Amino acid sequence: MIEKILEGDIRAVARALSLIEEDGGRGTQGLLKSLFTHSGNSLVVGITGGTGTGKSTLVEGLAHEFLKTTQKVGIIAVDPTSPFSGGAILGDRIRMQSLATNPNVFIRSMATRGRLGGLSAAVNDALVVLGAAGFQVLIVETVGVGQDEVDIAETADVTVVVLIPGMGDDVQTIKAGIMEIGDVFVLNKADRDGAEKARLELDALCSLLVPKQGWIPPILETVATQRQGLSELVSAIFDFKSKVMGSESLLKQRIDFCRTRLVDLLRNRVVDEILSKIGSEELDHFAERMAAHELDPYSAVEELVKLGKS
Amino acid sequence: MIEKILEGDIRAVARALSLIEEDGGRGTQGLLKSLFTHSGNSLVVGITGGTGTGKSTLVEGLAHEFLKTTQKVGIIAVDPTSPFSGGAILGDRIRMQSLATNPNVFIRSMATRGRLGGLSAAVNDALVVLGAAGFQVLIVETVGVGQDEVDIAETADVTVVVLIPGMGDDVQTIKAGIMEIGDVFVLNKADRDGAEKARLELDALCSLLVPKQGWIPPILETVATQRQGLSELVSAIFDFKSKVMGSESLLKQRIDFCRTRLVDLLRNRVVDEILSKIGSEELDHFAERMAAHELDPYSAVEELVKLGKS
Repeated sequence: MIEKILEGDIRAVARALSLIEEDGGRGTQGLLKSLFTHSGNSLVVGITGGTGTGKSTLVEGLAHEFLKTTQKVGIIAVDPTSPFSGGAILGDRIRMQSLATNPNVFIRSMATRGRLGGLSAAVNDALVVLGAAGFQVLIVETVGVGQDEVDIAETADVTVVVLIPGMGDDVQTIKAGIMEIGDVFVLNKADRDGAEKARLELDALCSLLVPKQGWIPPILETVATQRQGLSELVSAIFDFKSKVMGSESLLKQRIDFCRTRLVDLLRNRVVDEILSKIGSEELDHFAERMAAHELDPYSAVEELVKLGKS
Repeated sequence: MIEKILEGDIRAVARALSLIEEDGGRGTQGLLKSLFTHSGNSLVVGITGGTGTGKSTLVEGLAHEFLKTTQKVGIIAVDPTSPFSGGAILGDRIRMQSLATNPNVFIRSMATRGRLGGLSAAVNDALVVLGAAGFQVLIVETVGVGQDEVDIAETADVTVVVLIPGMGDDVQTIKAGIMEIGDVFVLNKADRDGAEKARLELDALCSLLVPKQGWIPPILETVATQRQGLSELVSAIFDFKSKVMGSESLLKQRIDFCRTRLVDLLRNRVVDEILSKIGSEELDHFAERMAAHELDPYSAVEELVKLGKS
């Protein structure tokens, strides 16, 4: 499987990604260890924004644009948790149909099963597999807002935040929440009414951001459905890559991210060990006493630590 | 301090809550241990919904309504992370002015500093303090959507989801994301255009939910600014309390929540211990090697576990 992935065998890649999703990565550690040193040469582009911003169409167009200069493009679309959104997501995938038959493009949806930490770890592992399989550009598309976006922005080399004109005041706060993570801003559906107003708002919001390494995030206008503005977007991404990505401060940021990830993995590993020692019944017993307000959580944890060590 | 809190001394309560926020609760474990068995008798009401739904005004009115039958009401408002939303939040607090001078009401904002787990733990600890101080009703207001809401809904005995008419299709998915956690739904601003349409949509969404213990979430219409529909809301909350809260399945849910919380606390505790053994410099060294793609994260964690045990 390792060799096949390194050769870029798509079926092997797909199988590895399924394994990563299935068990939270536990069974794929051996594989990932072997692939890791072969990965890291891809450009990871995060595309994030609210629902209805036309992200999927933008990602589709962007993939076509990247394919003009790049051989292989991988796309990971991160789906929201809710069972209700199934339909919309399926629709998104269908909208990417122009890429579905292209052998140089790999598209995969990953769901936010379980906890967020888990998803971000799964996306990271998927990027290792795709990177090792020789995909030069990896696009990670995230739906919605919140900690997901921030976690995944940490993974991406460059983060593109997608907004549209005519989002009302209600959405203002949501917009604000993802402003800090943008390296490049896209005002999609720029042919709509209110584009100029949105542009002014966006300029104002961007002026509040602290530049990274002298980089002031550009605001680009696109009409993804018409493939307008996409070559400019790709240029801006490569511009960011050449001006900022090799810099000292970004390396520091990368090391910080690695440290966080190591601590997360360590945490899961150590707690797995201790819980297997304590046993599920004993843990239930503590939880029952806590639920009955007989035992406070902090004393319970002290006792559990003792049990885990004995 | 413990005695003062048990007597309901507001200044002691406020100081305890500041301590909880300041150090992520580490320095307050002794205090919380002593208070825990005195807490757990309050009704914890979660109020959640998007920005612009008028939640704060609803919470304000709800507090007044609860005060008709309850002596003391505590309110914890959970703020979103973004620095940009500072203004809006401040506005919310100002809108609750009719409660600010009431000695039987305690209002506190808690910010989402750092990681989500941290916030949910801090809110839990704050609820212990307020419960021990004799607040019979505790309202937890959350802004935005996502894992925050789900985590905090697990904390609440009853969760009220607030929606408004005229949220467009863009917001549909966001709405869907919080539908699953609602025990009671409120259609606020029900005097607005589109209330009937929203009601129909909401009925349709609710019909997809799986009833808990035979409880079908009611949909109530309110106009919080006019204090309309609030007594019905309080009745619905108490109705849920009497019909569902004592039930076997809810106790099971409560035990599950306690188990999750214990594992979270255990995780943090154990990893703190192991990291203090490894030392920050050594960890940096591993992160640097990982950032340079010389060492994969899984092998790194194995080495770190060995270091932490030696």
